[in-house]
Amino acid sequence: MKQAEVAARFAASAAHGGAVVGSLERFHTWWGGLPRSGAYAVEPVPFGALEQWGFAPRTGDLVHATGGFFSIEGVRVHPGGGADPWTRPIIHQPEIGILGILVQEFDGVLHCLMQAKFEPGNVNVRQLSPTVQATRSNYTRLHEGRSTPYAEYFRDPGAGRVLVDVLQSEQGGWFWRKHNRNIVVEVPPGTDVPVREGFCWLTLGQIRALLRTDDLVNMDARTVLACMPVEPVGDAEAPGADPFTAAVRRSTAARGDDPRARTSLGAVISRLTDAKARCLWKTERVPLAEVDGWECGADAISGGPDTDFRIVGVRVGARHREVGRWYQPLLEPTDVGLAAFVVRVFDGVLHVLVCARPEPGLLDLVEMAPTAQGRTRGGAAASAGPFADLALTDDPARVRFDTVLSEEGGRFRHARTRYRVVDAGADAPEDPPEGFCWVTVGQLMDLVRHAHYLNIEARTLLACLHTLG
Amino acid sequence: MKQAEVAARFAASAAHGGAVVGSLERFHTWWGGLPRSGAYAVEPVPFGALEQWGFAPRTGDLVHATGGFFSIEGVRVHPGGGADPWTRPIIHQPEIGILGILVQEFDGVLHCLMQAKFEPGNVNVRQLSPTVQATRSNYTRLHEGRSTPYAEYFRDPGAGRVLVDVLQSEQGGWFWRKHNRNIVVEVPPGTDVPVREGFCWLTLGQIRALLRTDDLVNMDARTVLACMPVEPVGDAEAPGADPFTAAVRRSTAARGDDPRARTSLGAVISRLTDAKARCLWKTERVPLAEVDGWECGADAISGGPDTDFRIVGVRVGARHREVGRWYQPLLEPTDVGLAAFVVRVFDGVLHVLVCARPEPGLLDLVEMAPTAQGRTRGGAAASAGPFADLALTDDPARVRFDTVLSEEGGRFRHARTRYRVVDAGADAPEDPPEGFCWVTVGQLMDLVRHAHYLNIEARTLLACLHTLG
Repeated sequence: MKQAEVAARFAASAAHGGAVVGSLERFHTWWGGLPRSGAYAVEPVPFGALEQWGFAPRTGDLVHATGGFFSIEGVRVHPGGGADPWTRPIIHQPEIGILGILVQEFDGVLHCLMQAKFEPGNVNVRQLSPTVQATRSNYTRLHEGRSTPYAEYFRDPGAGRVLVDVLQSEQGGWFWRKHNRNIVVEVPPGTDVPVREGFCWLTLGQIRALLRTDDLVNMDARTVLACMPVEPVGDAEAPGADPFTAAVRRSTAARGDDPRARTSLGAVISRLTDAKARCLWKTERVPLAEVDGWECGADAISGGPDTDFRIVGVRVGARHREVGRWYQPLLEPTDVGLAAFVVRVFDGVLHVLVCARPEPGLLDLVEMAPTAQGRTRGGAAASAGPFADLALTDDPARVRFDTVLSEEGGRFRHARTRYRVVDAGADAPEDPPEGFCWVTVGQLMDLVRHAHYLNIEARTLLACLHTLG
Repeated sequence: MKQAEVAARFAASAAHGGAVVGSLERFHTWWGGLPRSGAYAVEPVPFGALEQWGFAPRTGDLVHATGGFFSIEGVRVHPGGGADPWTRPIIHQPEIGILGILVQEFDGVLHCLMQAKFEPGNVNVRQLSPTVQATRSNYTRLHEGRSTPYAEYFRDPGAGRVLVDVLQSEQGGWFWRKHNRNIVVEVPPGTDVPVREGFCWLTLGQIRALLRTDDLVNMDARTVLACMPVEPVGDAEAPGADPFTAAVRRSTAARGDDPRARTSLGAVISRLTDAKARCLWKTERVPLAEVDGWECGADAISGGPDTDFRIVGVRVGARHREVGRWYQPLLEPTDVGLAAFVVRVFDGVLHVLVCARPEPGLLDLVEMAPTAQGRTRGGAAASAGPFADLALTDDPARVRFDTVLSEEGGRFRHARTRYRVVDAGADAPEDPPEGFCWVTVGQLMDLVRHAHYLNIEARTLLACLHTLG
C-alpha cells in the first residue's frame, strides 16, 4: 500500500464518472426506490419514557441500563489565565468504532461499496454511508441484534489489502475524546462480494459528484473519503484549463515541502505545536449533575439561548437495522452550523487558511479546523471567528462549494452544517494572524495520514476541496 | 525549514568531529573542570520535612503549597475484557514544557548549544542537557527564582529559524500525559550569542560520540536529538564500507515508502492503529488515596517487591539553579531499566523491530516502543516482553550499542536504563508477532516528526541508532 500508488488508483477512480457498474442516473433510480419513511418512525419522547435509559443516581449522567453504548455526561474546561471554569454536557462513548469502506476494482477502476443507511437523527431517512459504520458495541452485539454486514472484512483486515487505516477524532465540542478507525480495505478483483440490499458500488468520481447534494453523503463517509490520498485527477497545465481548477490541481500535487507551498510542512506542524503550547485549557469529564446553568427538564437538557445544542430523547422504530426498535438520547443543535475554508490562489496555487482550534472533547485539545467554524442564525454567523464574514459572502463568483451536509445521525438530531469553500482573493491576508496558517491541499493530505491533525469539519472540507480539481 | 535541507545540514554537523569551536578533548577538560558536587547537596528527607509539600487532606495527593509544579497522584487502569482494574501512583504535571536546543553555524557547520545541567535525581552531578529545559512554571517564575537562560529564543521563536518543533510524550508508566515541546531554533550565523557559564557549543558528531558514555547525555537532550532529521553521514555504497554500517546508512535513507523498506509507511501506521483499536484499556487519574496496595510511609510511598518504583522526598541545595534551595518528591526506580531495539539486516538494509506498547500515562495509550522494554534485575530481564532474552545477549558481535543512560533527573532519582541495539540476525523472526513491526531508521524519522508515535525510550534508541551509521 504505497501512498503514491494508492493515490494514483484513487485518482483514476475519481476521474471515472461511473457506468462500469452503473451510472449516477441508475444510482438515483435505485436510491429513489428504496423503502421510504414508512419503514422507520422516530418520535421525540420524554426522558421518563426512554426505555433502558435513565439518570444515574449519584452522577446524574444519562446512561443505558447495560452501562454500554454511550452516555450523556459533563465536561469542565479550566481555560487558564485566571478565567473561570465552564461546564456543559458532552457525549461519552469510550470505544473506538470502525468507519470502513470496502473497495474493489471493476474493469481496473476502484469502486467503493456504499450503504444507504438510516440513522434516527437524520433529517431525511437515509444517507450515503460507509460500508461499515459500527461501534464496538455493534461488533460485540451488546444489543443482541443482527450482526453488522461486511464487518468481517474490517475486523480482520488480513482478508484484504488495507489502503487507509488511521484514527480520527469527531466533534470536539460534542464528544468526549471520541475517535474512530477510518479504514479502507481492498478485496482482490474477481473476489465475489455479494451486494446486500441497501448497498451499491460507486466510483470516487460518482461519490464526489453526490457530495454536492444537501444531506446525502453522511459524515462518516466524508471522513473516510478525506483520508483517501489522491493525485490531481487532471492536468493543471493543460492549455485552456480553468485557472481555479488548475490552482486546485497544483495545490493537490503540492505535498510536503513542495516549493509551490507557502509554508513548509515542518512550519505547518510547528504552528500547530505552538498553538497547543499556548492553549492553557485543562479539561475533565465531570458528572452531568455538576454541569452549571443547564436544566434537565422532562423533555430536554438545555442550557438557555446562548448554547448551541440540547439533549433530547427519541423512540425509534426500524425494520432494517440491527434491532427492530430502540430508544436513545440525541444531541440536537439549535442552529445550522458553519464550516468554511477561506482559500486564496497564490502564484497559481490554491492555499487553504486553516485555524488551530481548541475543542473541549479533543484528546490533544487543539486540531486544525476550518477558517470559520461555528453557528449560523438566520444566515448570519454567530461565533465563527474573525473570518466568518468572508466565509458567508453571497458573491457567487467567490463561493466555490456550498452544500449543507448532515453530521452523524446516530448521535445528533437534525445536525446540519453549511460547508463552504470561499475564494476570498486578496481580501484574505497574505500573512495570517496567530493561530492561522496557509496550507496546500497536498499538505492537508500529508497531515490526515496521521491522527489528531484535522478536525472532523476540516476533513469534510478536504473531501469537498477534492471535488474542485 | 524544508526537511531535506535540514536533514542535510544536520548530517554535515553529524559528520563533523568538531574542532571548529573546540575538540572533544577540550570538551572533556572543560567538563572535568566544572564545579563538582560540593556546589550541590541532595539528601533524602522524610515527607514530614518536605517544606512547601504536603499530602492534600481529601485526596491524599502529594502536592506543592502553590498548587503548581507537579503532584504525586494515582492512575487507575481498567484493562477491559473482564479483568480487574489496577492502580498505582503517577506524576501529574499538567503543562507543556520546552526542551530546546539553540543551534548556530560556525564555519558553515551547525553547532548545538548544550548545557552542563545539574538535576537533583542525577546519579552524577551534571549531565549534558539541551540549551533550555524548562517547565511553564520555570517560565512564569512560579518559584520566583532567576529566569531561565536563553528561554527568550524559544518563547518567541520569531527571533530565529525553527528547524524542529513537535510535542513528544515522556515516560507513560510514570507520568500522566506529560508532553513537552521538542524544539530546535537556529540563530543566524554571525549573531552574537553569549556563551554563559556551564554552556558549550558542540557539533552533532561530537554529541553522538558522547552518547556512548554512561549517564552523560541526558534524556531531554536525547529526545531533541531524536527529533532532528538527518541524512546518512556517509556513503553506504563506498567500496570497503563495513556491511553493518552500510546497512544502517541505507536504512537511514529509506524513508516513507522506499522500496528497500519491508513495510510501507502506511502499513506501519496501520499496525499502530490496529494496536490502538485492540487496546481496551481505559485510564483515569484518581486521588493517591485510592491507590490500592501502596503504602505511604514516613520516607517513601512504596508498593512492595513487584513494583518498579517508589516515591521519596529530597532536600536540594544548589548554587547554580533558578533557586538556591528547594525540596521536592522524586520517583525512584527499584531497578535499572532495559530498552533495546532488536535489529536485523534484510537485503543489506537495517530494520528495527518496534513494539506497539500501551502505557497508562500516554495520551493515546499506545505508542511505538523498543522491542524489549522493562526492568532488569541482576542483569536478567524482568517483564521486558518476548524479545528480552535476545536483547540481553552477551555476544559482543551482536551488541552494536550498549550504554546505561539516565532518565529525567528533575523528577526521577537515579533512574538509569540500559539502552541496547542488538543485531539478532536470523534469530529475529522475519514475520513479527502481533504488535511488532519491522521499520527502517528513515521511517522512524518520518514518524518522529509527529506527536504520539515513538515513546521516550524509542526516541532515545533512535538517537543511539544514529551513532551506528
